[in-house]
Amino acid sequence: MAMTAIGFIGLGVMGGPMAANLVKAGFEVTGYNRSPEKTQRLVAAGGRGAASAAEAVEGADVVITMLPDSPDVESVLLGSGDDGVIARLAAGTTVVDMSTIRPDVARSLAAAGAQRGVGVLDAPVSGGEQGAIDATLSVMAGGDAATFEAARPVLDAVGKTIVHVGPAGAGQTVKAANQLIVGGTLQLVAEALVFLDAHGVDRARAVEVLAGGLAGSAVLDRKAPAMLAANFRPGFRVDLHHKDLGIVTAAAREAGVAIPVGALVATLMGSLRAQGHGDHDHGALLLQVERLSGRASA
Amino acid sequence: MAMTAIGFIGLGVMGGPMAANLVKAGFEVTGYNRSPEKTQRLVAAGGRGAASAAEAVEGADVVITMLPDSPDVESVLLGSGDDGVIARLAAGTTVVDMSTIRPDVARSLAAAGAQRGVGVLDAPVSGGEQGAIDATLSVMAGGDAATFEAARPVLDAVGKTIVHVGPAGAGQTVKAANQLIVGGTLQLVAEALVFLDAHGVDRARAVEVLAGGLAGSAVLDRKAPAMLAANFRPGFRVDLHHKDLGIVTAAAREAGVAIPVGALVATLMGSLRAQGHGDHDHGALLLQVERLSGRASA
Amino acid sequence: MAMTAIGFIGLGVMGGPMAANLVKAGFEVTGYNRSPEKTQRLVAAGGRGAASAAEAVEGADVVITMLPDSPDVESVLLGSGDDGVIARLAAGTTVVDMSTIRPDVARSLAAAGAQRGVGVLDAPVSGGEQGAIDATLSVMAGGDAATFEAARPVLDAVGKTIVHVGPAGAGQTVKAANQLIVGGTLQLVAEALVFLDAHGVDRARAVEVLAGGLAGSAVLDRKAPAMLAANFRPGFRVDLHHKDLGIVTAAAREAGVAIPVGALVATLMGSLRAQGHGDHDHGALLLQVERLSGRASA
Amino acid sequence: MAMTAIGFIGLGVMGGPMAANLVKAGFEVTGYNRSPEKTQRLVAAGGRGAASAAEAVEGADVVITMLPDSPDVESVLLGSGDDGVIARLAAGTTVVDMSTIRPDVARSLAAAGAQRGVGVLDAPVSGGEQGAIDATLSVMAGGDAATFEAARPVLDAVGKTIVHVGPAGAGQTVKAANQLIVGGTLQLVAEALVFLDAHGVDRARAVEVLAGGLAGSAVLDRKAPAMLAANFRPGFRVDLHHKDLGIVTAAAREAGVAIPVGALVATLMGSLRAQGHGDHDHGALLLQVERLSGRASA
Repeated sequence: MAMTAIGFIGLGVMGGPMAANLVKAGFEVTGYNRSPEKTQRLVAAGGRGAASAAEAVEGADVVITMLPDSPDVESVLLGSGDDGVIARLAAGTTVVDMSTIRPDVARSLAAAGAQRGVGVLDAPVSGGEQGAIDATLSVMAGGDAATFEAARPVLDAVGKTIVHVGPAGAGQTVKAANQLIVGGTLQLVAEALVFLDAHGVDRARAVEVLAGGLAGSAVLDRKAPAMLAANFRPGFRVDLHHKDLGIVTAAAREAGVAIPVGALVATLMGSLRAQGHGDHDHGALLLQVERLSGRASA
Repeated sequence: MAMTAIGFIGLGVMGGPMAANLVKAGFEVTGYNRSPEKTQRLVAAGGRGAASAAEAVEGADVVITMLPDSPDVESVLLGSGDDGVIARLAAGTTVVDMSTIRPDVARSLAAAGAQRGVGVLDAPVSGGEQGAIDATLSVMAGGDAATFEAARPVLDAVGKTIVHVGPAGAGQTVKAANQLIVGGTLQLVAEALVFLDAHGVDRARAVEVLAGGLAGSAVLDRKAPAMLAANFRPGFRVDLHHKDLGIVTAAAREAGVAIPVGALVATLMGSLRAQGHGDHDHGALLLQVERLSGRASA
Repeated sequence: MAMTAIGFIGLGVMGGPMAANLVKAGFEVTGYNRSPEKTQRLVAAGGRGAASAAEAVEGADVVITMLPDSPDVESVLLGSGDDGVIARLAAGTTVVDMSTIRPDVARSLAAAGAQRGVGVLDAPVSGGEQGAIDATLSVMAGGDAATFEAARPVLDAVGKTIVHVGPAGAGQTVKAANQLIVGGTLQLVAEALVFLDAHGVDRARAVEVLAGGLAGSAVLDRKAPAMLAANFRPGFRVDLHHKDLGIVTAAAREAGVAIPVGALVATLMGSLRAQGHGDHDHGALLLQVERLSGRASA
Repeated sequence: MAMTAIGFIGLGVMGGPMAANLVKAGFEVTGYNRSPEKTQRLVAAGGRGAASAAEAVEGADVVITMLPDSPDVESVLLGSGDDGVIARLAAGTTVVDMSTIRPDVARSLAAAGAQRGVGVLDAPVSGGEQGAIDATLSVMAGGDAATFEAARPVLDAVGKTIVHVGPAGAGQTVKAANQLIVGGTLQLVAEALVFLDAHGVDRARAVEVLAGGLAGSAVLDRKAPAMLAANFRPGFRVDLHHKDLGIVTAAAREAGVAIPVGALVATLMGSLRAQGHGDHDHGALLLQVERLSGRASA
């Protein structure tokens, strides 16, 4: 079968376990990461290491990028002029950018690929580090249908819910909506937890019963226990969620969509970051509600 | 066994199916409702009808109330002086108020019961009409432990997740937190749906993938489909959620807890009501986001 | 002339200088305050001291109350049953409550007065301690026109802008609107000052030019200099503004009026109080914006 | 005296009367506007008309631009490469951009000017159409001190409060703060007016007394009367204020400054625009509060 060689660029908290899962699923994975010790982990897991992005994508059928932000992806895939990854690929290759970036950048990458016969999908994920490790990520893919079908076996190896949501950029748009809902739900749970604490309610039991009703959510299931334990080791960093909410608010403004709660949550996340919590898990929104309620531990 | 006779006051959208489930579970249920045709439905389901609250609680081991608001419950249980239900009950009877009311009123009812040897639980529910019909409600109970244990067989017949969350009033406090989270999540989902629509994304597919990740929630599962179909038949009415958010914001203010997102959601729910949507399902928050985004259908 | 004897109850930061100005204007003023040393100041200014509210209003033509909150005014004017000030007054006496209280309480006081032939005005003020000292307060009066005309000479002695804004309660409604605007403007100025500081702009000069344009306001003129100097000695305490914003949000909710910015400002003021700034001037909203922006000095 | 010839580009609602005031003050003004009928008005007022920007700045000592947005100013002053106005000017000429644009663009214009010996000031204004007509504008100028002193006689002819607030970009930063305060104050006044109306208060009298106290502001003095008369003819268009609040929120985000009220006001202004009010005066925020309160006239 043709599609076996994968070039994987970006082996961080998310990309590392995803690449390992691709190896496990039988793909031939060559990985590259700026800091080389992460490449070593892929090698230990049965993949191959490359010393540059160019080397990683040499002969690849599918290229996957999993990078922090829009400029990183642009730099790797487009470079400055003709020296980016897309320019090196044979026509017919598929690029799957699984980073969370701006929808308009995703559309421009797809256009750049189309000019060279390279199909580009925007396929950001939800589910966090644990989802990456367990290969249970949700994947929201934008791009043309043929490219999506070509990439599906690869996506199946890293995720559980794989949905083609529309043309180029649509994946990032859905991811933006995802980050809006997740950020807002975290803030709501934080407000509820401080409210319950202030009224002397046993919070662990309250979370149990809340989770069983209409207030139930993945955030309550997966994030509330760590928040109650004041464990803010990431997980997903405030810095990244702040970046994502910048994408959401800009895209909403551009489209004339009113997101009053989203805008307030973006302000609160930005404030959390400004207070030095950028490296904490986004569940640290709890700390801010505590502080605003005069209940800060420190 | 002693505890078989139940007096049930308030046979509306929620109370009606709950009383029917108690009949099914083998309890002897005598029901009363202000508008008598709802009492007839209980009779058709195998219960007995009463012409007054007093008649319904005659000889009851357990009295359940399921009424719209704090004054309704006070009026039935306390009356004006000595003519309320609590004054008629034998010592050792248990009262379970499953309405959603103010935590401080719940505490005063428990105190009034204690004076006469009547145990009073505040045990509001989450899960909506469907949960009431399916006997899968979440029940958050406040009160002393012995009263909770006495009432547990009855609660088991109407709900699935039954949790004792603390002393008198704690059940209502948790319910308030529940309504804060539910109202906020509905608003977030509404914002996300309009955002997706404005960007031309297939919303049904987007909801599918969002539901599978960290943005997943009971609201997304149970409410988003009706919202996408513009079906705002209740369900849970905006009027009631507005009342509940009034409880939340007052209790937060009293405790000095900052709930910035909760306060904004309360404003938006109040605004929806002021615009004539009080009788619609709370999912109608979608209509307001559409209107604020210049995308109103009407 | 008949109207010369004034009984003045509440000689605090505001009431003290107001009573002194009434003495200066030629009125015969008998004052009472719970802590007697404040009564001594009135005596030093030429007034008379009373040992109780009852003594202060003995033979008064006009009774003025200047007290912290609704319950204080109710307690003094109504008492518990028939022992309040209104019950002691001769028909034809005028009561002017200049405290900031709930509009519905103001209406009930007017009704209680009407039953005994006593005209009651709600006449809260704006302008702060300096305005009280300089007799330049703005007075917003609610009540019937005849009572307003009877009280006008008295009001002229303490204020500069004296306006009859409607029937009983209307004065408190306008005062609530005043507190909404003042609280919001303080928060806007706080946000602007931190914004300017973060961008390295000379804030004193910026305030000068802002004050000259459409951004100009009494808050910018009178409050910004102290805020820039980090001087948060009251002035007007956060505790009191928090109380007043509670009146505003409750009255808006009751009337179905959407005040999204007002609700957010009320949350922020409550948060400032919860963090221990209740005794500071309301300009301390600046400290909170600094903290939320990671720029706290402490 | 050397500095008499002024090239004025952008003769709209603001630029038109400003150019006319410069003529009145004795300057030799050559104006250019894209739609030529506005140039004719300058000619009628005693100025000269030019058929292009290049013609307008020919031989000018001072060039003034008064244009809608950042791209317009960049296009006129920089062009695409070497064909902009700055490239045509003799060293020693002064450019005063009085438009409201992004602070970072202002800084880049100053840098471009510096390379050619052209001093560039950012000198946006506040005061609206009436201020432009009456030459009572507030001018907030950023740039080096020598350039500011050189331009001062020109600025004195169009404004009343002329303040040098800091280096290049500082003028635009202060203008951004100005727009934050003005937009927020308009929203607060709108909320207050609907609140007063819902409680049956005479609003004209309420505005009179509010204006005399700590709630007083230029917005209340100059905007509330038109708002009460439901006159939303601009004045200052919602479209432009929406643009400006985009500058504010972006600059606040970039600097890590929390502006929760500013962010909410930006959302509300964007929503007003999305509902088709872009061409109305920003006082139309009143319409939106009325609608959100179920009190819309239409």
